[in-house]
Amino acid sequence: MNDKAPLSVLGLGAMGTALARAWEAAGHPVTVWNRTPARAEGFSTAAGSAAEAVAASRLVVVCLLDDASVGEALADTDLTGKDLVDLTTGTPDQARERAEWARARGARFLDGGIMAIPPMIGVPESGGYVFYSGSRELFDEHRETLAVPAGTNYVGTDAGYAALHDVALLSAMYGMFAGVSHAFALVRKENIDPEAFAPLLSGWLGAMLPFVQRTAEQLASGDYTTGVVSNLAMQAAGNATMLRTAEEQGVSPELLTPYLDLMARHVADGHGDEDGTGMIDALRK
Amino acid sequence: MNDKAPLSVLGLGAMGTALARAWEAAGHPVTVWNRTPARAEGFSTAAGSAAEAVAASRLVVVCLLDDASVGEALADTDLTGKDLVDLTTGTPDQARERAEWARARGARFLDGGIMAIPPMIGVPESGGYVFYSGSRELFDEHRETLAVPAGTNYVGTDAGYAALHDVALLSAMYGMFAGVSHAFALVRKENIDPEAFAPLLSGWLGAMLPFVQRTAEQLASGDYTTGVVSNLAMQAAGNATMLRTAEEQGVSPELLTPYLDLMARHVADGHGDEDGTGMIDALRK
Repeated sequence: MNDKAPLSVLGLGAMGTALARAWEAAGHPVTVWNRTPARAEGFSTAAGSAAEAVAASRLVVVCLLDDASVGEALADTDLTGKDLVDLTTGTPDQARERAEWARARGARFLDGGIMAIPPMIGVPESGGYVFYSGSRELFDEHRETLAVPAGTNYVGTDAGYAALHDVALLSAMYGMFAGVSHAFALVRKENIDPEAFAPLLSGWLGAMLPFVQRTAEQLASGDYTTGVVSNLAMQAAGNATMLRTAEEQGVSPELLTPYLDLMARHVADGHGDEDGTGMIDALRK
Repeated sequence: MNDKAPLSVLGLGAMGTALARAWEAAGHPVTVWNRTPARAEGFSTAAGSAAEAVAASRLVVVCLLDDASVGEALADTDLTGKDLVDLTTGTPDQARERAEWARARGARFLDGGIMAIPPMIGVPESGGYVFYSGSRELFDEHRETLAVPAGTNYVGTDAGYAALHDVALLSAMYGMFAGVSHAFALVRKENIDPEAFAPLLSGWLGAMLPFVQRTAEQLASGDYTTGVVSNLAMQAAGNATMLRTAEEQGVSPELLTPYLDLMARHVADGHGDEDGTGMIDALRK
């Protein structure tokens, strides 16, 4: 494959702009389109309509506000024979429906979930990457082009998997942010330098990361009780101290209580001998 | 100092037992006491009462169920001239009150918050450690002895700081656990191998850890808006996708919603241009 393949980029928000610039900087002929044309200034080739942009290249990348915007922007375009890569944020089901929609219009479809913020795009050492799922053929054929703005990670033919991985990782990150926010709030009251506290906090969280692999092993085996040192009943015994400390420090416990409540409920339901892994099944409706 | 100093250990739960064993294994003469004497079997020197145990050594370590148990166990003991190290789990205020209580009885006082589980005690490469706060003199004098079961980290003369650090780090860990639990629950519905998903999840969380230092810098400066790439208003725009994904996957959003709700509230209060750091102040009552 020609690794300077032409492509079209529809949607020039912060992320779409960063993507298009990265491809242009790498020598790819890029045709851009944006609903508000002013954002296309500075690019060498701007299409007057979404249909023109789609017609200009076989590889069409869309990065719009939401899935509904994708349907609207592409409504009057001819997708026959196109390779459509959808980097718009959405849910797994939205990606699956969009994949069906694209296939029905004669296009191959690949969905992407971007694990990066715009400044990381085009900076290989930034660690940013994109989850891809859907057409394996499309991915393989455009692999080098797709790798220009950020690392690639293909996670399956199910078009919904990229979004699922994206949302799952972002959800976990928000959990970590919530925990860190509560921790900083607790020490705010005191004469504790946040910059001295930060390495202790990040060091501790880093040291706890191997529990993710252990949780996965327990989920795979279905055994949540063998070899558990500090089971949920023992952990729950410490909950009162954590809540009382929040109270003493004048911190709302709202970010902490849901996990402690779920733990207490799971213990009350007879799962006190389990590791925290058991709570994952309790979350499923 | 004699690094094989004698000491007494009161409380032989899982942690107290592990501590006493670690000191005995290192050659320290250890006098143990437990309310239920059976747990003292296997130790060379068991005291018949808490008063005897306290009388046996200058350095007295207590590791009991809770702070009330400490008050009960030590009620009829002579603490004059003792160095009391309290490794019982409790809140910062409990530690401060216990410090006053001990000083009034003629003892120096050091509180500890153990960042380890019993199997990590006495295993230097385990990474486990204990936060200490209170009497600096006590800490310095018994530093080598205290370092036998686990690493030491002295965080201040305020006796409450060890517990505060302990609870803050555990709270942050639970936040991370909550996020990870939600993430695993999301992918449970699909044919996604948890052991293949785990490295993606832990790798992502590890890559996000530097935000802890950035948060600390923002807290120190009081500036939550300069150089923010993805501010709270932008982040909040993605909340619906995260909640809808949970719904699609049949997962209760209870561990995710508190952070998203706080974010939405903070944006509604006019802080949409801030980084997530601003939410920390919003947690303070």
